[in-house]
Amino acid sequence: MQTMPFVRITLATGTDDGACARVGDAVHHALVSAANVPKDDLFQVVELLPPASLRVTPAYLGIDHSSDVAIVQVFLNAGRSVEVKKALYAAIAEGVAAAAGLRREDVVVSMVEVAKENWSFGSGLMSYPP
Amino acid sequence: MQTMPFVRITLATGTDDGACARVGDAVHHALVSAANVPKDDLFQVVELLPPASLRVTPAYLGIDHSSDVAIVQVFLNAGRSVEVKKALYAAIAEGVAAAAGLRREDVVVSMVEVAKENWSFGSGLMSYPP
Amino acid sequence: MQTMPFVRITLATGTDDGACARVGDAVHHALVSAANVPKDDLFQVVELLPPASLRVTPAYLGIDHSSDVAIVQVFLNAGRSVEVKKALYAAIAEGVAAAAGLRREDVVVSMVEVAKENWSFGSGLMSYPP
Repeated sequence: MQTMPFVRITLATGTDDGACARVGDAVHHALVSAANVPKDDLFQVVELLPPASLRVTPAYLGIDHSSDVAIVQVFLNAGRSVEVKKALYAAIAEGVAAAAGLRREDVVVSMVEVAKENWSFGSGLMSYPP
Repeated sequence: MQTMPFVRITLATGTDDGACARVGDAVHHALVSAANVPKDDLFQVVELLPPASLRVTPAYLGIDHSSDVAIVQVFLNAGRSVEVKKALYAAIAEGVAAAAGLRREDVVVSMVEVAKENWSFGSGLMSYPP
Repeated sequence: MQTMPFVRITLATGTDDGACARVGDAVHHALVSAANVPKDDLFQVVELLPPASLRVTPAYLGIDHSSDVAIVQVFLNAGRSVEVKKALYAAIAEGVAAAAGLRREDVVVSMVEVAKENWSFGSGLMSYPP
């Protein structure tokens, strides 16, 4: 499988615990449904920062942004195809927007790909030895 | 262009909103002027943490550090030359030091390079399809 | 040498300053002893977030997790062998668990590898020019 992701989600202060959990669940559901991540492979940090800390362009490449954004950064193993990545972005934007009550335009996603040897999800063991 | 960066800036608690914005602007200006990033391509998080949370060596490779540091982490597309990276570091250190009232020695920068397919800046769309 | 790491450590709110420092020191000691990082090459952020912000699977690949976890993300130069990475994970888990009073199962580590030109630890200089 070799699919462990680590996800950092940044939302504006004031987002309540229920909404934070729903956003995290939405991102995870997108990873499971679109990118073949195992259902039990959930490792996330959800941080809340004052709106002034989330600095996003008013508009870029034809998409305008409001002051109410969600920033989702996914660290995962390399190897997803372009088609899988496209499906993943669509699923994250749709799920997070619904979960947080945001516009889809305001869901910003980026990914960092790593080698499969780069994970230890507990007990000091390499999770996916070669 | 394929140049979208995401920037995480970590400063000490007590930095006021104005200084945070100036630091963010300084980093962005450095990216625009030294690394060919479009002016409207601005996606940043500025986080403030207690000084004890910013743990930096007193000295390394001949540069000494005070307890008042700025940590700048830039995620961007792969492909900048060594010369561009050098110019970018110089521009970030100069701009952030001036904006935050820090020493240039205390501006710590690192970069993580990713594939151009790894961005969706909104609406669930891949920003730079191949 | 070319070994500069940047480490982000995420712990639950309530961890006191002493424990935070001990955890940071434990991660650094693991990097020095297992991954050939110079002793003075210390750059870390320790962030504290509410337990609800640390969202970790109850169990995955045979390891169960409690609600009291430490998430350690290491950015470092590419090139460590699988054996070095295995030793590093073991050393981080053991050291962090002891330092924070956590179970070894609850120490989650991931790594992001970058090029050696991707660091400027101060003064706007490229730390490891080619």
